[in-house]
Amino acid sequence: MALPKDAVHQASAHEPFLMDCWYVAGWDHELIDGRMVARTILGKPVVLYRGESGRAVALDDRCCHRGARLSHGRVEGDCVRCMYHGLKFDATGKCVQIPGQDNIPPRLGVRGYPTVERDRLIWIWMGDPAKADAAGILDFPYLRDPGWRGHPGYLHYDANYLLIVDNLADFAHLAFVHTKTLGGSEEYAFKSKPTAIERLDDGFRVERWHLNAAPPPFHRKVVRDDAMVDRRNIARMYVPGIFFMETMFVPAGSGGADKTAPDKAAGAKQYRNCQFFTPESATSTHFFWDYLHDYALDDPNVSLSLYHSMVEGFNEDKAIIEAQQKTLEADPSFPMHAIVADAALVHFRRTLAHRIDAERSALKAVA
Amino acid sequence: MALPKDAVHQASAHEPFLMDCWYVAGWDHELIDGRMVARTILGKPVVLYRGESGRAVALDDRCCHRGARLSHGRVEGDCVRCMYHGLKFDATGKCVQIPGQDNIPPRLGVRGYPTVERDRLIWIWMGDPAKADAAGILDFPYLRDPGWRGHPGYLHYDANYLLIVDNLADFAHLAFVHTKTLGGSEEYAFKSKPTAIERLDDGFRVERWHLNAAPPPFHRKVVRDDAMVDRRNIARMYVPGIFFMETMFVPAGSGGADKTAPDKAAGAKQYRNCQFFTPESATSTHFFWDYLHDYALDDPNVSLSLYHSMVEGFNEDKAIIEAQQKTLEADPSFPMHAIVADAALVHFRRTLAHRIDAERSALKAVA
Amino acid sequence: MALPKDAVHQASAHEPFLMDCWYVAGWDHELIDGRMVARTILGKPVVLYRGESGRAVALDDRCCHRGARLSHGRVEGDCVRCMYHGLKFDATGKCVQIPGQDNIPPRLGVRGYPTVERDRLIWIWMGDPAKADAAGILDFPYLRDPGWRGHPGYLHYDANYLLIVDNLADFAHLAFVHTKTLGGSEEYAFKSKPTAIERLDDGFRVERWHLNAAPPPFHRKVVRDDAMVDRRNIARMYVPGIFFMETMFVPAGSGGADKTAPDKAAGAKQYRNCQFFTPESATSTHFFWDYLHDYALDDPNVSLSLYHSMVEGFNEDKAIIEAQQKTLEADPSFPMHAIVADAALVHFRRTLAHRIDAERSALKAVA
Repeated sequence: MALPKDAVHQASAHEPFLMDCWYVAGWDHELIDGRMVARTILGKPVVLYRGESGRAVALDDRCCHRGARLSHGRVEGDCVRCMYHGLKFDATGKCVQIPGQDNIPPRLGVRGYPTVERDRLIWIWMGDPAKADAAGILDFPYLRDPGWRGHPGYLHYDANYLLIVDNLADFAHLAFVHTKTLGGSEEYAFKSKPTAIERLDDGFRVERWHLNAAPPPFHRKVVRDDAMVDRRNIARMYVPGIFFMETMFVPAGSGGADKTAPDKAAGAKQYRNCQFFTPESATSTHFFWDYLHDYALDDPNVSLSLYHSMVEGFNEDKAIIEAQQKTLEADPSFPMHAIVADAALVHFRRTLAHRIDAERSALKAVA
Repeated sequence: MALPKDAVHQASAHEPFLMDCWYVAGWDHELIDGRMVARTILGKPVVLYRGESGRAVALDDRCCHRGARLSHGRVEGDCVRCMYHGLKFDATGKCVQIPGQDNIPPRLGVRGYPTVERDRLIWIWMGDPAKADAAGILDFPYLRDPGWRGHPGYLHYDANYLLIVDNLADFAHLAFVHTKTLGGSEEYAFKSKPTAIERLDDGFRVERWHLNAAPPPFHRKVVRDDAMVDRRNIARMYVPGIFFMETMFVPAGSGGADKTAPDKAAGAKQYRNCQFFTPESATSTHFFWDYLHDYALDDPNVSLSLYHSMVEGFNEDKAIIEAQQKTLEADPSFPMHAIVADAALVHFRRTLAHRIDAERSALKAVA
Repeated sequence: MALPKDAVHQASAHEPFLMDCWYVAGWDHELIDGRMVARTILGKPVVLYRGESGRAVALDDRCCHRGARLSHGRVEGDCVRCMYHGLKFDATGKCVQIPGQDNIPPRLGVRGYPTVERDRLIWIWMGDPAKADAAGILDFPYLRDPGWRGHPGYLHYDANYLLIVDNLADFAHLAFVHTKTLGGSEEYAFKSKPTAIERLDDGFRVERWHLNAAPPPFHRKVVRDDAMVDRRNIARMYVPGIFFMETMFVPAGSGGADKTAPDKAAGAKQYRNCQFFTPESATSTHFFWDYLHDYALDDPNVSLSLYHSMVEGFNEDKAIIEAQQKTLEADPSFPMHAIVADAALVHFRRTLAHRIDAERSALKAVA
């Protein structure tokens, strides 16, 4: 399988972002007690807060008067007051009060961004607000399903989001990066192969079985059982950087691509994992995630153990990827060389690039 | 009142400084015991020291030989010796000794800067030395008047000096930034207004009364009296960044713009505040200040309490202004929007810009 | 003696490096126990390790696949495995395994660099490998001579390597920088002068006597004798930045340029010092050194005391030179002014510039 080199070029710090799509801006619990969250998204400083009405508000975190940070200000009802000279803005960003001045210019204000809250996630639309349609938000039903239990997580990466997407596009890295945490053994890279790499219009789907394997450490820690397992991962990655994964462990010998997947009664233990990558800037990323399980739902220590196993594993990725980011920044001319396992990665980068190009062409046509 | 937007554009990091004027370089107590002070002023590294004769010397902090720092050297009489290869420079910057070399090129040396010491302040002239006339130094007589007592202060800002000047041009910020320190209440921004904004050739003068107000915390702490007061602030700001303020508290009902200001016998307590902003670079500032009082002169704790109240208040400004600097650097195209209260700020920026333009035009005409 | 100013211009951050020559990459003890050393040399990230066969390997520290650091990987035999996706490279840099992929493109790999180990030093060749001839490595026989004992040292400088070379080109700095450590007195700069500055094709040689002097602190500490001495330094500096020095102390009155140097029996105590400067980048340097003595060879405290005296002295240089680097970066237009003592420095900079120019002309002629 030949892979054109230009299709796997490194993420450029100057590559534009896809604008007209929903990004995860935060978890709902971040906005409790009137807390204001200052978070830069796609390079734009944004302030997030929950107004008195319960509405999640997202505004430019920069007062239109002298540029003070609204996140240093105070929530009043659904409004925010800048605590430099006291200008007050409503939930749309319109200026509604200037202390000591009776007339307010009707168009004075800051930019507001559409938000949607769903299943504990706060989504934001950074592009053309006229195109913001909540129907375009990808559904991950396990976050609201009482048959699944998890623990919401957040990590910050000093790296371009696509380097993290790349990481998830080839599970061979489980064998080497996560041998003692999420992987289990190096044989995963040698013996197991994707049974299918499906190219989707907006991403890819990969299925991979690892048969007759020792249970990986994160799983063994909670099931306390060393018996050999068959492990199936089904991973989906969607534009611009949304990752859903289904993981199933069944007793060794009962799994495999050629068999009907065994059900719970047959001893299956399953996980559902969602990961959302939101660019902070071209060289840093917000990473929101949850790793849910479908058994022992009344034991809070299972969620907690899985949460900490994931943090441990993600930090293994983070060390490699942040070093990779520095290496690429030091020499932007470095030509990466594709291997066969990069097929999903290459398709994803192409798909995203086409979407961004299309968006920019449309903008030019209008202008 | 219409304010042209272009007149309130943000401070550019590339904006030139006014050169032919006096800047405060330090307090006299900084040079005791032969201490050498390395301080960058208008982007130029300068070494300051007091020679044996008592003279305050200011030289380029860079040996003309290999660029070693003279501030790492040693004061000898009124001279300084570079402690790399031993070159010695007199108080004008002329090289007067090279160890192991008999002939010294007559024009070898470093640049020296005119200095003037007055009322505990050391002033420096960074522009054309032929134009350095001590008569141009603004007088603040309270620093030498035994009827006033204070405590000299210094703070460093990671922000352009004009953002700090802006801050002082609108006292509405007292209400929001300094509610619990220097301000006293948010009503200050809503109920009190400047009674006069006087445009001066080299700055502005603003007078503002706040009638029948609770005494602000910094004042209440030292007078230990909760009785309501009338408060008058008269603030003057001069090019390039010198701020003088007279503050008076009188018993509520005895003040106001329409009344003759009551004298000390009538219960007035007064303050005199000087603030000097000297650019370190386009994005950082040296801030020298003193806040003097005219009562309880034999109680050192009054000065000390006021000093600490000011530090507390200035740090409130500093947090906002340094964030503002970062916000402006992140997006230099940000168009600020003026409000009515910006009249003094706008006049000051215009005045300074005209002075800088005139200075540069004169330089070009010569060249 | 006239020195053209352009010949002593400051080290530019954009000045190219001499490529076709040997640089010291490390001490042999750095690679014990399979340790991988990540070290940037001439701006290139390099990984160093000792393979199972004992061979010192130097490869680009960047996997050719996705840019992960090989120094985060694992040594296997003489090979290294990238611990991101498991690619394995042999000691020449050739890729010899891709987990999950049977065919390996024959030219896939990373760049390998020639190395030579000699007398505990690991040398690396960053230029055209076809020109790498071990015969070009400068010999410093004292490192293998049982008649001399030392202790290998390493320091990192945040400064261009040529500023450190400059430092060693004029020993007057001993008087001012190292008065209380390596120098002994300021009179060294005034009374002693080089008796000869010899311009070599690839550097310079300077001889300097200081007669009837108090022993400098580093020497007095180990000999515990305050008797006056005659001190001779013979220093050689070679392109690109290799410094060898012979130091001899004899009883006062028995030395001097006009006398045959006294031998050991006559009370001479001698030192041999090698210093190797390898650019990490245009603004930082790896500094390897050893300071050996020819007496009291069975007392390990002599080596140790000398080692610590040198570290103390080098840190005095480092403080000055790193400040100098910052000063030069802040104003690249600063014109340095030469003094007579800069003769050796000027010759060295010219010699190196000619070598670099010649190398670049040859490259252009080929292209």
